[in-house]
Amino acid sequence: MLGRKLAARLATDGRLADAPVAHLILVDAIESECPAAEAPQVESIVADLSGPDTAADLVSRRPDVIFHLAAIVSGEAESDFERGYRVNVDGTRLLLDAVRAVGPSYRPRIIFASSIAVFGSPFPQVIGDDYCLTPLTSYGTQKAIAELLLSDYTRRGFLDGIGIRLPTICVRPGRPNLAASGFFSSIIREPLNGEAAVLPVPDSVRHWHASPRAAVGFLLHAATVDDERLGTRRCLTMPGVSVTVAGQIESLRRIAGEGAVGLIRREPDESVMRIVAGWPSSFDTRRATALGFRADVDFDEIVQVHVQDELGGVIPLATR
Amino acid sequence: MLGRKLAARLATDGRLADAPVAHLILVDAIESECPAAEAPQVESIVADLSGPDTAADLVSRRPDVIFHLAAIVSGEAESDFERGYRVNVDGTRLLLDAVRAVGPSYRPRIIFASSIAVFGSPFPQVIGDDYCLTPLTSYGTQKAIAELLLSDYTRRGFLDGIGIRLPTICVRPGRPNLAASGFFSSIIREPLNGEAAVLPVPDSVRHWHASPRAAVGFLLHAATVDDERLGTRRCLTMPGVSVTVAGQIESLRRIAGEGAVGLIRREPDESVMRIVAGWPSSFDTRRATALGFRADVDFDEIVQVHVQDELGGVIPLATR
Repeated sequence: MLGRKLAARLATDGRLADAPVAHLILVDAIESECPAAEAPQVESIVADLSGPDTAADLVSRRPDVIFHLAAIVSGEAESDFERGYRVNVDGTRLLLDAVRAVGPSYRPRIIFASSIAVFGSPFPQVIGDDYCLTPLTSYGTQKAIAELLLSDYTRRGFLDGIGIRLPTICVRPGRPNLAASGFFSSIIREPLNGEAAVLPVPDSVRHWHASPRAAVGFLLHAATVDDERLGTRRCLTMPGVSVTVAGQIESLRRIAGEGAVGLIRREPDESVMRIVAGWPSSFDTRRATALGFRADVDFDEIVQVHVQDELGGVIPLATR
Repeated sequence: MLGRKLAARLATDGRLADAPVAHLILVDAIESECPAAEAPQVESIVADLSGPDTAADLVSRRPDVIFHLAAIVSGEAESDFERGYRVNVDGTRLLLDAVRAVGPSYRPRIIFASSIAVFGSPFPQVIGDDYCLTPLTSYGTQKAIAELLLSDYTRRGFLDGIGIRLPTICVRPGRPNLAASGFFSSIIREPLNGEAAVLPVPDSVRHWHASPRAAVGFLLHAATVDDERLGTRRCLTMPGVSVTVAGQIESLRRIAGEGAVGLIRREPDESVMRIVAGWPSSFDTRRATALGFRADVDFDEIVQVHVQDELGGVIPLATR
């Protein structure tokens, strides 16, 4: 989803900071949707990054910038232990090793999409930039390992890496999914479409969010942020909006009215509550802010981004 | 070195906490020196842990406790990038996977020897238990990755892991080596033998030390520390003695006299100073202390341990 939005944005802009984008190569395990573009030549490749020759093949094209978003998601990395490690750890290492194998003449910027899943409770109310990574999922562990690899390969001069820990993306477009975090998006997305949504946790639950648009902004900014200013710590937490479920619902009320809010059905679910209790709720991201990364202003903006980018600026009448 | 001392201690004690030790299997890339023992049956195996069948072979013997100290050391992991990752990361993962492959009936305690090399500057004067790991060497990176694997495999129930971050071991027995940290031991060990030692850094440099005897004590205690009390954070920094080089020299003076101190030759070395500046100098290890891990009392004790364990309790006359 983020990859598709990032590709669309690069195709539309035709440039990355001051440099024109000549080629855009979209690599995924399934066929990518190629955005229409005049300037950059857009190409789609179907490949498995954890396959034996994939990384060398891709790197043979010598991209200047590599956005590495490929991952087995949290739920699957937990249910299929081996696949999670193969793709999320080995796939990443194969990519970094393929770049290293080219030699010192090639040192691309690699932007790695990490996640706040690298953090695991117990933690303070607000997590600072130097808090330890103690993931409580295999997915979070794999992201943390990839961060370490990225930093070491960068320190050794094999590449120019930056890892950005994305907040939970909200509002996710598309249909409800089975992820434990799905309700954060669902309670906004479904009511905006005049459909019912289930809220499995208390209104007091606080979490850390970014819109898909803000996340794409982080990725683009990461591609151009100054190497020198990053120093040796190549991975950092992105800014976000810390908001309670109650605050999310207030934003929905302001933007779509009482009718939309009425579509949220409270169905407390102990197992979801237990999972969510282990998630971080807020961060102090002064490093990212100093480096120029910008979050959504507030949760109202996050809802409005969804209305603008996914609903064509119009809230379907059913919710009025 | 630590492995040899640990084996000797286990052979002598014949037990680990309340349990008798029936078999002791020593595995190394070179032939291990088997300690003489009446009770435990001691066996030595020469094997490369990163080889294809080694881990499965070793695990087929179903040890109840596995001390995993195998590692390519810091200097070599830096000079031979691929070998460091192969042994320190892949070797560890092969071991953990071999245990996992046995299935739920087998859940051995695995004690992993990590290192304070997982920390990299900048850091506070005193590093707490929840400070982030930002290694500045490939060795430290590999240890940090192994810690993450150990925690995730433990969380998944595949094994019962604990990772302990050892301080710099001082006084290391043996001859001077080329490690940047070698002088910490050298300035004590050589003068005690009536030989000259070179000090490449200012007296004000502060570092974190444990005697070999204390380190063996950490490993033994880690083998029996209560699983429940460890919780989800399976890796922790061991207590140590934080002392300046000046403090080390004062200990030497108290124990071996002015003549010994006179054998230390100050030869400032910019490159060693730069490396050492990136090392931690002190930790707040309240978690380890609460779990019953005990460091040396002070640097005097560290020197005395060396005299007792390596010199037979006698300081050679030449130093008097």
